[in-house]
Amino acid sequence: MDRIIELNTTIIAAASAVGKKEHEGPLGSYFDLHDEKDKYGAHSWEKCESTMQRAAMNIAIKKSGIRENDIEAIFDGDLLNQCTGSSYGMLGYEIPYIGLYGACSTAAEGIMLASIMTTHGVFRYAAAVTSSHFCSAERQYRTPVEYGSQRTPTAQWTVTGAGAFIIGPGGGVRVTGALPGIVREKGVRDPSNMGAAMAPAAAETILRYINLRGGKIDDVELIVTGDLGHEGCEILRDLLGKDRADICDKLADCGVMIYDTARQDVHSGGSGCGCSAVVLASYFLPKLEARELKKIVFVGTGALMSPLSLQQGEGIPAIAHLVELQCAE
Amino acid sequence: MDRIIELNTTIIAAASAVGKKEHEGPLGSYFDLHDEKDKYGAHSWEKCESTMQRAAMNIAIKKSGIRENDIEAIFDGDLLNQCTGSSYGMLGYEIPYIGLYGACSTAAEGIMLASIMTTHGVFRYAAAVTSSHFCSAERQYRTPVEYGSQRTPTAQWTVTGAGAFIIGPGGGVRVTGALPGIVREKGVRDPSNMGAAMAPAAAETILRYINLRGGKIDDVELIVTGDLGHEGCEILRDLLGKDRADICDKLADCGVMIYDTARQDVHSGGSGCGCSAVVLASYFLPKLEARELKKIVFVGTGALMSPLSLQQGEGIPAIAHLVELQCAE
Repeated sequence: MDRIIELNTTIIAAASAVGKKEHEGPLGSYFDLHDEKDKYGAHSWEKCESTMQRAAMNIAIKKSGIRENDIEAIFDGDLLNQCTGSSYGMLGYEIPYIGLYGACSTAAEGIMLASIMTTHGVFRYAAAVTSSHFCSAERQYRTPVEYGSQRTPTAQWTVTGAGAFIIGPGGGVRVTGALPGIVREKGVRDPSNMGAAMAPAAAETILRYINLRGGKIDDVELIVTGDLGHEGCEILRDLLGKDRADICDKLADCGVMIYDTARQDVHSGGSGCGCSAVVLASYFLPKLEARELKKIVFVGTGALMSPLSLQQGEGIPAIAHLVELQCAE
Repeated sequence: MDRIIELNTTIIAAASAVGKKEHEGPLGSYFDLHDEKDKYGAHSWEKCESTMQRAAMNIAIKKSGIRENDIEAIFDGDLLNQCTGSSYGMLGYEIPYIGLYGACSTAAEGIMLASIMTTHGVFRYAAAVTSSHFCSAERQYRTPVEYGSQRTPTAQWTVTGAGAFIIGPGGGVRVTGALPGIVREKGVRDPSNMGAAMAPAAAETILRYINLRGGKIDDVELIVTGDLGHEGCEILRDLLGKDRADICDKLADCGVMIYDTARQDVHSGGSGCGCSAVVLASYFLPKLEARELKKIVFVGTGALMSPLSLQQGEGIPAIAHLVELQCAE
């Protein structure tokens, strides 16, 4: 039976750490921390992800006012092979670690799981953390940046950034529901068009949510997708139906928002685990906290292929996990 | 505060699908399904993992007596880059999918999360699924098997196999507790010695468990580790303390049990997500069901490095998640 997981917990603190391009984008002033060299002092792009994760986690812990060892579990994952940004990043915290793989949907997946756990008292506090890096993603999924490959118009720019969320009882933005996604693959085989691959999964999760909420979501002000980019957003609107202005007027996408597409030459927008994580942590959550927004749904989108699966002729499977967020009562 | 997650749910069914070598091993007759060609009709080793996962899942669903759409979530992950064995494997099930990365600890991680969810009624039924394949693991982590590389004495043989577990209310083996692991890295850098890398994490989780259970585990008949192999088991015994016969006499390891080391030329034993999954599903769970065993703890062990992280000079981080299992009351 399809149903929304009803939740009753709060995001007590969140933090973001980003790179140069993200800092120079339209949301640049919102992020907690940035590094002009995109390295955070690390000796490789991959190690930089771990360092960014720790930076975001430490800032979030500080903001939360709780002690590090009050956190009883970390839900974490990233795009690197074997999620090493996360496993090395969380070394040194004396906190149980639960590894995830949700590609760019990891922020939503982690927040969903941490919220379920804290709603039911399995853990008093739990953290959700994730990251991505433009240079590590390019060399792993496409070609090393040093090659200077030409990017296609539908290509997205992987966000260099990490986000961390501390979840549990207390003040802050309320997590009131979640809807985990189903894996979908609709024949898209172009690794430079993640938006097209992920849009069907996003459309399905959004429509399931609306249906399960009785067909009406008048109280939801925004439907924030993770990283569909310009191309994916257009496809999402088509899939939802041009006549559904009630839904389409509420759409916003972190991948579209994080860069100034024309000025920053990012083609179809931003992507990566870090994209939705940092925009949620530093832009949307503060707006909910300030009651400028009352209720939004956050739809993390992820493409679950590997370079090898595409070489073997497979399509790109995708997923979209939804989290319902509301301002304090 | 460190504590055991108390659980109250059951594994209502489990199933395994394995390869030729596993079928020829000492536990061969226990597995539900095997394929002499290690391919399950698929055109690549990676696709074979997806096919094995579906085979195990379908057999488990059939055994459980529930309908496929009674399962409200699948917790799944594997060793392949971006966990494609799982994402492609679960395409076609109309069930929400929650992707995990726990390396060889995935079976324990998935059972733990599915058990938490069903204990608290978040989902009525949930599945935990995982797989590994010798040939896909060799070419991804070490060298393609066609190269005929010499294996070191501490090397383990990645199990070709998939396991699936259906968890929820009903008869069957009870899941009564879980203890998620903490990431540990003790300086082991040899990708042909996973046992040494994982043993410290296993020792810590076992000692935490015993401590949290008041220092005594007389009622626990076996402590079953996932895939430490002969080398890792020896190190584990050293770490636990030679004087702790009360613990060491209870140790068993799926990686040691699944092959006849001398006859099958597997050096230090079996490994991989599939190793602990298929041995638990087809050997230990039936013994608990038949009340030949009353209470065991299952300690899934995982090494969280990537080939790239080792090339960059890092050590191998490891984790061990524990699940407490008991026969029906």
